[in-house]
Amino acid sequence: MKAHERALRQPLLSPRSVALVGQSDDPAKTAGRPLAYLRQGGYPGRIYPINPRRETVLGEPAWRSLDVLPETPDHAYIVTPTAGVVEAVAACGRAGVPVATILADGFTEAGAEGAARIARLREIAAETGIRLVGPSSLGVVDLRAKLLLTANAAFAETDLPVGSVFAASHSGSVIGALVSRGKARGIGFAALVSAGNEVDLSIGEMCAATLDDSDIGGYLLFLETMRKADELRAFALAAVARGKPIVAYKLGRSAEARELAVSHTGALAGEDDVAEAFLAGSGIARVDTFDGLVEGLPLIARIPIRATVAGPSVGVVTTTGGGATMVIDQIATRGIKVAGPTEATRSRFAAAGIAVAPARLVDLTIAGARYDVMKSALEIMLTAPEFDLVLAVVGSSARFHPELAVQPIIDCAGADKPLAAFLVPDAPEALRRLGTAGVPSFRTPEACADVIAAALKRRVPKPMPARRGAADSTTVSQRYADARLEISAGETLLPRGRDHAEPVAPAYLAAQLGDERTYDAAAGDTSPLVGESLPRTRSGVGAPLRAGRGVSSESPQYLAGGGRLLDELEAGALIDRLGIPRAAAVAIDAAVTPAPELPFPYPVAVKALSSAIAHKSDVGGVVLNVRGDDALLAAIVNVRDRAAAHGAPVERVLVQPMVEGLGEALIGYRLDPDVGPLVMVAAGGVLTEIARDRSLRLAPVDLAEAREMIGEVRTLRALAGFRGKPAGDLEGLARAIVALSRLAEMDDPLVGEAEINPLIVQAKGVIAVDTLAKLA
Amino acid sequence: MKAHERALRQPLLSPRSVALVGQSDDPAKTAGRPLAYLRQGGYPGRIYPINPRRETVLGEPAWRSLDVLPETPDHAYIVTPTAGVVEAVAACGRAGVPVATILADGFTEAGAEGAARIARLREIAAETGIRLVGPSSLGVVDLRAKLLLTANAAFAETDLPVGSVFAASHSGSVIGALVSRGKARGIGFAALVSAGNEVDLSIGEMCAATLDDSDIGGYLLFLETMRKADELRAFALAAVARGKPIVAYKLGRSAEARELAVSHTGALAGEDDVAEAFLAGSGIARVDTFDGLVEGLPLIARIPIRATVAGPSVGVVTTTGGGATMVIDQIATRGIKVAGPTEATRSRFAAAGIAVAPARLVDLTIAGARYDVMKSALEIMLTAPEFDLVLAVVGSSARFHPELAVQPIIDCAGADKPLAAFLVPDAPEALRRLGTAGVPSFRTPEACADVIAAALKRRVPKPMPARRGAADSTTVSQRYADARLEISAGETLLPRGRDHAEPVAPAYLAAQLGDERTYDAAAGDTSPLVGESLPRTRSGVGAPLRAGRGVSSESPQYLAGGGRLLDELEAGALIDRLGIPRAAAVAIDAAVTPAPELPFPYPVAVKALSSAIAHKSDVGGVVLNVRGDDALLAAIVNVRDRAAAHGAPVERVLVQPMVEGLGEALIGYRLDPDVGPLVMVAAGGVLTEIARDRSLRLAPVDLAEAREMIGEVRTLRALAGFRGKPAGDLEGLARAIVALSRLAEMDDPLVGEAEINPLIVQAKGVIAVDTLAKLA
Repeated sequence: MKAHERALRQPLLSPRSVALVGQSDDPAKTAGRPLAYLRQGGYPGRIYPINPRRETVLGEPAWRSLDVLPETPDHAYIVTPTAGVVEAVAACGRAGVPVATILADGFTEAGAEGAARIARLREIAAETGIRLVGPSSLGVVDLRAKLLLTANAAFAETDLPVGSVFAASHSGSVIGALVSRGKARGIGFAALVSAGNEVDLSIGEMCAATLDDSDIGGYLLFLETMRKADELRAFALAAVARGKPIVAYKLGRSAEARELAVSHTGALAGEDDVAEAFLAGSGIARVDTFDGLVEGLPLIARIPIRATVAGPSVGVVTTTGGGATMVIDQIATRGIKVAGPTEATRSRFAAAGIAVAPARLVDLTIAGARYDVMKSALEIMLTAPEFDLVLAVVGSSARFHPELAVQPIIDCAGADKPLAAFLVPDAPEALRRLGTAGVPSFRTPEACADVIAAALKRRVPKPMPARRGAADSTTVSQRYADARLEISAGETLLPRGRDHAEPVAPAYLAAQLGDERTYDAAAGDTSPLVGESLPRTRSGVGAPLRAGRGVSSESPQYLAGGGRLLDELEAGALIDRLGIPRAAAVAIDAAVTPAPELPFPYPVAVKALSSAIAHKSDVGGVVLNVRGDDALLAAIVNVRDRAAAHGAPVERVLVQPMVEGLGEALIGYRLDPDVGPLVMVAAGGVLTEIARDRSLRLAPVDLAEAREMIGEVRTLRALAGFRGKPAGDLEGLARAIVALSRLAEMDDPLVGEAEINPLIVQAKGVIAVDTLAKLA
Repeated sequence: MKAHERALRQPLLSPRSVALVGQSDDPAKTAGRPLAYLRQGGYPGRIYPINPRRETVLGEPAWRSLDVLPETPDHAYIVTPTAGVVEAVAACGRAGVPVATILADGFTEAGAEGAARIARLREIAAETGIRLVGPSSLGVVDLRAKLLLTANAAFAETDLPVGSVFAASHSGSVIGALVSRGKARGIGFAALVSAGNEVDLSIGEMCAATLDDSDIGGYLLFLETMRKADELRAFALAAVARGKPIVAYKLGRSAEARELAVSHTGALAGEDDVAEAFLAGSGIARVDTFDGLVEGLPLIARIPIRATVAGPSVGVVTTTGGGATMVIDQIATRGIKVAGPTEATRSRFAAAGIAVAPARLVDLTIAGARYDVMKSALEIMLTAPEFDLVLAVVGSSARFHPELAVQPIIDCAGADKPLAAFLVPDAPEALRRLGTAGVPSFRTPEACADVIAAALKRRVPKPMPARRGAADSTTVSQRYADARLEISAGETLLPRGRDHAEPVAPAYLAAQLGDERTYDAAAGDTSPLVGESLPRTRSGVGAPLRAGRGVSSESPQYLAGGGRLLDELEAGALIDRLGIPRAAAVAIDAAVTPAPELPFPYPVAVKALSSAIAHKSDVGGVVLNVRGDDALLAAIVNVRDRAAAHGAPVERVLVQPMVEGLGEALIGYRLDPDVGPLVMVAAGGVLTEIARDRSLRLAPVDLAEAREMIGEVRTLRALAGFRGKPAGDLEGLARAIVALSRLAEMDDPLVGEAEINPLIVQAKGVIAVDTLAKLA
């Protein structure tokens, strides 16, 4: 943890004195609450209500301004209307207040006016060093410090249990729901922050400030968006290193909720699977149920974070078949294996005199709800190697006779293996006992399965990608310059005649040759494309060339803004450097005549060569299956004319052989503005968009991750030798994903987006046919 | 309702006297409970505990046997061990007991021994007229009649609230969970039955027996399987006709849970989307959360069942943006539209002085939780035509200040439009008030969205399909015989020479001709295939012919058992009768030489013609893209030899033109052993199986339903003119689905299964290329 983060903790959560700027005299008003709650909660520090228009507020003396206070408060809660916020923050900054929290809205979600206010807040923060929580923050609560510095009405409640959970939420209202729902389930909080718009302090930075806080055992996040994800990730990595689990509920599964996040918080909400990849890659357990968010940490804390993919399995023991099957159904639909006992374990049941049917579920219904039977069954399961976690599902007896089947769970809670409980009836007393005994327990089958799946899927996070350092970067830069140089030097194919037919960029046919070595574009060996040594590409039915789909299609903003679009030769040089095999390509002067001699046989594809056109197909800039010299010339004219008609005249066209394969994939990389470098794989073709069938990870990925990604794309299973069809080289596809993901480690050029679509998958090898790349 | 159903109700739920056969003296044992619970509950009828080995049980005199009772009890609960059950039921039958409920297991789930016991039970029932609940039944409870005829420990609880819900469950344990969870949410039950294995009385029949029970306002079902679905459907149709809603929770989303249903209840559990289609087609609202099952009926009862597909929309008003977005996210991911207020409604908000941001959500956060604001907002939304349902989401104030934002919901409960509430904090008192006032309310965002979606998706059920009656059936039979006759008469193409080249079945090319009239195979007009009048099919890249995938691939039992497989000519004649266009086809003697003159140009497909081969591709029985006479002869030899090598010698092969289209689909029909006639559409090709991308309905369907089905298959969107590609004739596809689904109305022949795969979709029209059909 950094020193400034450590320094932040004290004024944020344990201020010795607080100022309430704009405190109202009316307890019914939002601005009237903080003083009442602080007093009611018994805050032991000094409180300075500031209200220039009143002598007293709620019966206490009010101060005219910050300037007249006898000391500089550690933390100011600014509850004035929006119009007064900037001046109040400025006054705090001048006075040397280290942290101010802002209640008002009217910033991120308020257009140009709001943006101007934010700019002023940032200026003040930069000038004075003040740190800001919010705006739109319902405040900061530390139940240990009795600091109820909040306007959330939920904190009118006294005797809120103090616990070990730190909660941070974009929504201020939700922290109130968390404390009441937690209390009902025996779960207490150490502290809670309503992070609001995160104009300055992010959830990640505030959580990080508490990492050395030994009272805090875990973190609970309610996220509406993925703002300042780098800070969240840095915090998450540090928390995992300290063994402190993080559970998150993230809004935005639906487009409607993402749209609301924009109108509500002013934050652009990205696609949900991007958030999913980010949270998973950061070691954060994401739950899908609100109960799971409240109930989840005790179980997540008990399950060691996993380094590998190997599927963990859950053993289930029950006194109620129907009730247990509900949870098993939910666990299994979340992709977690529910295992039955092995033969060895069954023998142990038999030896203990426990009748167990030969099924996946250890059903004790016949034996009935009895202490000794449940206890013995649990002892056997908790020492059986086939289970990574044991879940006990208790039926009706849990309600009035917890001594029968609930008490044995409590008595087994000390086992090394994680043990959890779901109670089928309404059984608040049994839930309370389980909670007190530290047994993770659940009120609904959905939350139970949700948390089990989230806990078992949690993985050791990947370190932040290190871009190559300055020294290496020079080399890279030089090598990239070399590649550019070749492109310029190679120039254009001239009419007929071997000596004019120069390839303009190295093209590698490794996959077709069965050669799996990684090529280095900087080596400059262009010979495979020249003369008789050219390996003939097989021609036939070509894969259609469709540019600009996949990642970019849903996110036109990534193409519209940002850096320069590379032309296809430059993009090709880039992927050569990554070692991804691609189809041969030559550039031809668009005014050429007669047809030049190509270094590969017909049929060929002819494409406009221009960095001004991202979606060549959309402007008629691609002609496929061109056969023969006359057709080639006609295609060139066609492409040239259509590009010109779209206002993008081209001087050169790119000619490639048609490449045949067993199928195609789309792989993409992007430096996501929200979450950083991402790599994606999807089935190529129109289904990518229709079925949204893709897999994303934080980049870079290793081979194991790339294989896992391929396994997640359902439509790619058709390439895995399905139903006796020939299998595609999915291992080659995995290597290409790994290679593309390494753009995350390259800083010269800094690539903003790259997409290979299609990447033709052959029986042996893969070949990039069309590549789109944009600098950051 | 049938008379025997009416007669069933009284002994089932309101017996004047009960016998407890095998009642134990030990209250800790399961067999000791019924007497204790009946006494504790204050059952006013006469109770006869029967135990031949004891003078008294639990302090009451025990009777030696049924024979010595002073009267014939209305209902016997048999709680003896399995071995004694058959004899006890026989004794009840002999004594004239009308209904007996059986506790023991050891029947459906117990293999041959269990099957023998079931057979005996059925014999006794047939001989004596006794009706049986169970086996594996935890009993029957009628809280109105104080009848706690149960061994479920949950009924040790006194003061269970009496309500208007009738619950039926395959799982006996779950009925206990329902009463305690219901009680915690202020929801009471009229009666509950644990249906067990349904060896005699099914859930459907028992529910039907209560249809005239005016106390019962709705039905709650917990289903582990789809046993006796016909009775369930008949009940559901009658319930809908009476305006009584049904909500169901059905286990089996996962294969693991379906497997457990087998081991647990002995029932074969079908695929989950079959159950989904059945429940939807029967007007039953299916929920996915256990809380939703408990909390659902009040809202479902408030929402009129819909006749059409037109998407209903939900309006959401809230005092907490974050909390409301949770529900909206869940509602939207379930495919229900959350609408924002129209301009007109916004004007009304403005006129009422309520500031509402221009978003989908009516967020009152700025105004705060105030009675007058919430009340006015609700009044506006409840009279705004754009909302079919209004959901109020209340934040922290709901916990301790229900007078602020909860009371206005209660005060608006009388509106015509359905109104529901979700409370974000833990707020039991507010939930109680809402429940008492009859406002449907929810404790979690997931259950809230689940019930809203289930309620809004509920449709008027379709009537049971009427197979054509006897008179018409004769005609059909005759027509089918005619078709068979043509097939036999047409016989086989002989070598060279027009007069020998006879088509063996009528083939219709309506789609290619742009002719949409429905053909009648019985008309016998075979001319389109003969001579020069033959419309030429366009040849080109053919769609691969892949038989036996889709429905049948996952359910080999449907092909393995059952009736005769039709050969492809017979299957073709069948779909001709349905009016589905299909590719031309001629049969050729497999020993033919030289090649016969075909009535259509090359390329063609050659297939083994045999009713002994279901999956022609698997035995090498299909050759595609055959061009020229020599290739034709070679293909015939090839097919013949390969079929012979697989032990299925063929005398004839079928030859068809290769058919070109924009894409393909798979349509299927089956007489499902669980739920009856079903129709399916899926994208053709390998993706059908990989992506499980299909849509099912109870058959027959009308055009509107068929269009809806097509809309549910994601991969078919590629045929809807996606991204400027030419659009396929999805309306033609819909007509083909309707036509195929009409097999449900045909009784001669009674078709067990039919699958057209692929059905080629062209720009105008569709053409069946390969059809597989089996008689029931």
